[in-house]
Parts: sequence; C-alpha cells; structure tokens
Amino acid sequence: MIPFEEMRELAQTTPSRIILLVMDGIGGLPHPQTGRTELESARRRNLDRLARESICGMSTPVSPGITPGSAPGHMALFGYDPLKYQFGRGIVEALGLDIEVGPGDVVARGNFCTVDDSGSITDRRAGRLATAINHELCDLMNGHVQVAGFHAEFFPGKEHRFVLRLRGQGLSDRVADTDPQREGMQPLHAKALIAEAEPTAQAVRSLVEQVRALLAGRKPANMLLLRGFSQHPDYPSLRDIYKLTPACIATYPMYRGVARVVGMDILPAGETLQDQISILRQSYKSYDYFFLHYKKTDARGEDGDFAAKVKAIEEFDAALPAILELEPDVLVVTGDHSTPAALAMHSWHPVPVMLRAQHCRRDEVDEFTERACLRGGLGQIQAMDLMPLAMANALKLNKFGA
Amino acid sequence: MIPFEEMRELAQTTPSRIILLVMDGIGGLPHPQTGRTELESARRRNLDRLARESICGMSTPVSPGITPGSAPGHMALFGYDPLKYQFGRGIVEALGLDIEVGPGDVVARGNFCTVDDSGSITDRRAGRLATAINHELCDLMNGHVQVAGFHAEFFPGKEHRFVLRLRGQGLSDRVADTDPQREGMQPLHAKALIAEAEPTAQAVRSLVEQVRALLAGRKPANMLLLRGFSQHPDYPSLRDIYKLTPACIATYPMYRGVARVVGMDILPAGETLQDQISILRQSYKSYDYFFLHYKKTDARGEDGDFAAKVKAIEEFDAALPAILELEPDVLVVTGDHSTPAALAMHSWHPVPVMLRAQHCRRDEVDEFTERACLRGGLGQIQAMDLMPLAMANALKLNKFGA
Repeated sequence: MIPFEEMRELAQTTPSRIILLVMDGIGGLPHPQTGRTELESARRRNLDRLARESICGMSTPVSPGITPGSAPGHMALFGYDPLKYQFGRGIVEALGLDIEVGPGDVVARGNFCTVDDSGSITDRRAGRLATAINHELCDLMNGHVQVAGFHAEFFPGKEHRFVLRLRGQGLSDRVADTDPQREGMQPLHAKALIAEAEPTAQAVRSLVEQVRALLAGRKPANMLLLRGFSQHPDYPSLRDIYKLTPACIATYPMYRGVARVVGMDILPAGETLQDQISILRQSYKSYDYFFLHYKKTDARGEDGDFAAKVKAIEEFDAALPAILELEPDVLVVTGDHSTPAALAMHSWHPVPVMLRAQHCRRDEVDEFTERACLRGGLGQIQAMDLMPLAMANALKLNKFGA
Repeated sequence: MIPFEEMRELAQTTPSRIILLVMDGIGGLPHPQTGRTELESARRRNLDRLARESICGMSTPVSPGITPGSAPGHMALFGYDPLKYQFGRGIVEALGLDIEVGPGDVVARGNFCTVDDSGSITDRRAGRLATAINHELCDLMNGHVQVAGFHAEFFPGKEHRFVLRLRGQGLSDRVADTDPQREGMQPLHAKALIAEAEPTAQAVRSLVEQVRALLAGRKPANMLLLRGFSQHPDYPSLRDIYKLTPACIATYPMYRGVARVVGMDILPAGETLQDQISILRQSYKSYDYFFLHYKKTDARGEDGDFAAKVKAIEEFDAALPAILELEPDVLVVTGDHSTPAALAMHSWHPVPVMLRAQHCRRDEVDEFTERACLRGGLGQIQAMDLMPLAMANALKLNKFGA
C-alpha cells in the first residue's frame, strides 16, 4: 500500500458510494464430519450471486500466521497498517465500554484481584467475580478515591474487568503496568517510563494505595491491577486521507470506537441486522462510505457452535437483497479475521473477500467460500489493500505519477 | 512478517511439536523430452498423500528473481528476513568447514592464486589445485606465519579454497578484501574501513607479505587472496523469539552452522537419511522444533543429473512414513530454493511447500509438485512467513492486539 501522504494526493470526492460489509470472524474450518466449513455448509443464495458478479480473493489481516484482535483486524479493513496503527490495551477496553476518552485523558485496563496478607497476588481475576459486584466496587471507589490534580473515574466492565480514566492537565500514558501478569508476585509500583510521566505515575500510586485500604478485608476482590496505560490515538482520518464522508453502523461499542478513531460518523445502529439496514437506507444519501458490522458470525464462532454460525451466515445472506437494492457503486463483503467454530476463537486463517463494482474485472469464482475464493482475481491480498481497491473501483483515485 | 519484538509477545511454549523437512534445492524445471519436472517425474506416493492432508503453496526464499545461497535460503525458512540477517562470506565458508568461530574472532575466505613476476594475478584459483596440495600449503603457513598480537590459523577447504581465522583481543572485520576479483591486477592492500580496524588490517598485511615470501617460486599457487572478513553474527535465537527448544539434524556442516547461529542444538546426524530419521525418533521427546536437512536433491541438481535428482526424491519419499509415524503436530515439507537439473545450479524459481496440521485448512491440491502447489491455499508465500505459520498451526502464538 502506498503511504498516506501519496494517497492524499490521489484521492478525490465523487458522488459514488462504497459499502463495506464486515461479517465478523467469517472465515472458518471444515466440520470434522462433513469436511465443509461454516460458509461451505450455509445456504448462500445471495452471497454466491454476488460472488459471480464480483472479483474475489483471500485477505490476510495482519500477516501470515498472525491471529488479529478486533482492533487490528478492523484497522486493516479501513486501510491502516495494523502494525503501525496500534491501540493501547486501555483504549481498546475503553472503546469496548463506550467510554468517552478525550484528547488529554489517560485510560488503563483494570482487573480486580485477590492478594494474601503479605500482599502477594493469589488470583489475578478475583475468581472472575460477578459483574454486579464489580459495579458495586466501582461505585465505592468512585465515591472515595481522589487524586491531587486529576479526576479519576472507574468504569465497570464484565466480571473482574474495569477501566480507569484519568482526566486533567499534563497527563502522560508512559506509565508502567502494575499488573505483573503472574500470580505469587506483589502488584508492581506504577513507574514513570519518562520524566514527564512522573505526576501521572504518582497519581496512580496514590490511587492504588487508597483502593488497597478501601477494599482491605473484602473477598474475593481486595486489590486492583492496572495495565496498558494509553491515550486516545491521534490517527489520520478517512476524511483526511481519502476525502470521504464515512459512517459506521455497528451494534457493538468496540467497533464503533475503532470507527470513531478513523473519523467515521457513528449512526444509531439499533440492535438487529434489520435495524442496521434500515439506518443504512435512511442515511444512504448523506455519506459516501459505509461500514456495516455484523457481529453474530464471530460470536457463534467463539461459542464453538458450528450450526449457529452457519445460521448466522444464512441470516446475513437473507438480508443481503435489501442492501443490494441500494445499488452501491462499490460493495465489499469480507471479515476482519477468521473465527472457526472448530477453534472457538479468532484464528490466523485468511478471510474470503469479494468486491463488486462495474469495472471490478470479474473472475470465475461462483461461490463465496474459503476454497472458491482461493481461485479469485484478487489472489491472496493484504486486508489493508482493500481500501485503496474500493476507492479505485469507486473511481475516486487519480493516476499516480505522470 | 511482524517484527521480532512483537513476535516475542505472542509466542508461548506448548507441548506441540513442529518438524521442518528441507529437501534442499527441491524445485525444478521440466525435462526437455517429457515436459515434466524432477518432482513431477518421481514416484511420490507419500509426498502426494501428505499433500492431500496439507495446505500447499509456492514459497519465494528472498524475492522474485533472486537466486538464494544456502545461508539466506535457510535463514528465511527459520523465519529471518534474509536481507536483514546476512552472513559474511568468511563466516559462510567457516560454517561450511565446521570451523569454530568465537565471539571475537575474524574469519575470511581465502583463495590460493598465481601471480607473475610483477605480482599481477594470472589465475585467481591457481588452476584449482589439488585439495591435497591445499592441505600441505595450509600446514606450511600454519608452521611459519605469525602476526604480532593475534593468533592466525589457516583451514584448508576444497581445491584452492581456505579459511583464515584471526583470534585475539581487539579484532575488527571492517577490513577491505585483498581479492580484486579480476585477473591482471595486483592483490589489493588490506585497508582498514574504520579506524578501529587498523590493527587487524596491519596484521593481515603482514601475514600476506609473509605468505608471499613463503610461497615464492612455487607452482601454481604462489600467493593468496582474502575476502569477506567477518565475525560471527549475534542474531536473536529461536529460543528467544519463539520460546522454542529447537534441534538440527543435518549431515553437512554448512547447514549445522546456520542452525547453530539461530540457536538450535546440533544433534549427531550420522551420514544417511536413515541415520537422520533414527536420531529424530530418538530425540523426539526432548525438543519441540526439528529441522531435518536432506542434501541429495540439491547435490544431484547441481550435478545437472535429472534422473539422479528424481531418484533422490524417491528415496526421500520412501523414508517419509518413518517420520509420519511420529505424528508431529505440524509438519512442513519444502526446500530452501530450487536447483533445477536443467540449470545445474541454484535458481530463483519458487519452491513447493506443504504444511500439515489439524487446523491447517486443507486445499484441493493432491500432488506435491510445482504445478499442483500453485493452486494451493498458501498461495505464493514468502519463505520467512512459513515459521509464523508453523507456530500458529502449533497453537503457539497468541492473538495480536485486542
């Protein structure tokens, strides 16, 4: 992919529209009984029709063998090198909880944990305590913990997870984790990694000691661990690089968060795929780039439920015609990574992709499956190259060089 | 491929085992009579069975059009960018002769040559003199040549080739070649390329003049040429990057040498493929990564002997079942480069590769040949990406990013 500085020179605004449909975790692995993957097992009437009208291929989100998290997987689909445009742990967690992170704020991922009388960690996750208790503990800390010069706030997540947000002037995220990532050790002191981070590190140390006193004697959570101190990344936006007016239609906060980082307008997505398609249709005139995120394929893959993932694919297939009616100039269908039910987790396997546009140069692929897309005209492509390809097919990129 | 710093964060030790089988120089070109390559001409019962159970592809060792030497070919297979992790000429030669090279040592590749009365080179290889004479000359030089402050030693190779090793405190390899690589010129003075290399350069100049006097009047070798001054590279090891316990089973010193550089234990490989497989089976419990090197395919290719290369492939094929019985979690079969009998040398052509593992996502390739592997699920892959893929398939790599 060419550098953004070069891309900026080539990109132009036109009336054409691009829709990126992300079936999260769509890539799969064969079922041991049938030898067919989830995609190969599903009824794919509309996906296959689209494949026949598209150029197809296999997309590698990060690099061969690397299993991407959701953030790098999506950054690549938005055209950003996922190795260069990384997110701190704290930011990813904050995005996933829809927490507002301002330009000067510092956030960290927190765990409630259990320590013994000597202060050594006996359980890094405090027995994965109930989410309701997590809420109580965050309320308690928000009521009592104060640090000089900054405002600290705790946001509960699921089970033992929470986010700490520090707000104020002169914060830095160059603070070392207090989480040693091992049991049997004491929580680490929050060290400043650069001199400018000393006030932040002091605030964190003070806050940690206050919490230690506040939770003393409680069970199972009597202490906290912090890691991944990070600030909101200041990355170039799709408006800036591609002169697009982009919109995100995602039902989960994490994906909205990543989309916000690259400058998308976040549309009210509702709760179902039908809700998402309604808002897509309503706002179709107002944007020239849409990212629509479909979560179920990944969720069912992570459950290890092959049949349910097949069903999720079929549900998406059935909803496709309502999107096709919009007749987008460029339609891209792919995933951010594979989530085979056989592994019940994200995996490293390349992801099928198809791109339909008037001048896409169709290949001979007639099915939207892992095996069929191997023979596609895109070949094996880096996910981050899909964005320039979508732009080109939308006739939004000028010639490079004379 | 992602940088080693990132890889270190992802790699974890697990009980799963990886075997890399390198059929040196395996890629070939069609026989003019039959139109079939060496692989296509061979009986491949076991290789083909393995191909049906694997994901296949074509691997490019360095980059398109580039013919790799053995060192870059293998560094790529071990997951190292062969452009970044290079070896000096002297080191490659020393590794090939099993010469011990310590941390401070400097080695250089030497040629015996012929000079005329004016000192101009008339034959850079002294008529490719007999190896026995080479041994005599090295003995003679080792008996007479002395340099102040360092210990110099000459190690005979084949024909006109030898290795000079300098040992002592304060050596530097930043010394220019004395070999002008052209006949009709005088040998060059050993120039220091940086100030710190002046003592080394002085020692080399003194040593060269001593040899000139010592060999004066001899035929055909009456002088020496030195090139590729180099020190042992201090590269990160597979233990460090991937948390592996790796072992090498190779019958030739060069491959053991490269394996040693990346931190493999060198197992006693014996002389035959059967010896190699015996030691693999004996030590199977003690390591989680094995590199087994098969030399014959390359040697017969370099001989330009098509039929003998076919036979070498069939010998390997026949030995495969004894390896498969170990049921390695990940098995990779490939070469470090092509050595087509038609060219009788290493070539730039991509190399067939197959990777078998439970979750490899098999493709439809049913033969281990150059043409069949073109349609494989790995596509056209960089050789250095095979290592992360093997790690992923062994479930030894955690997720990248959240």
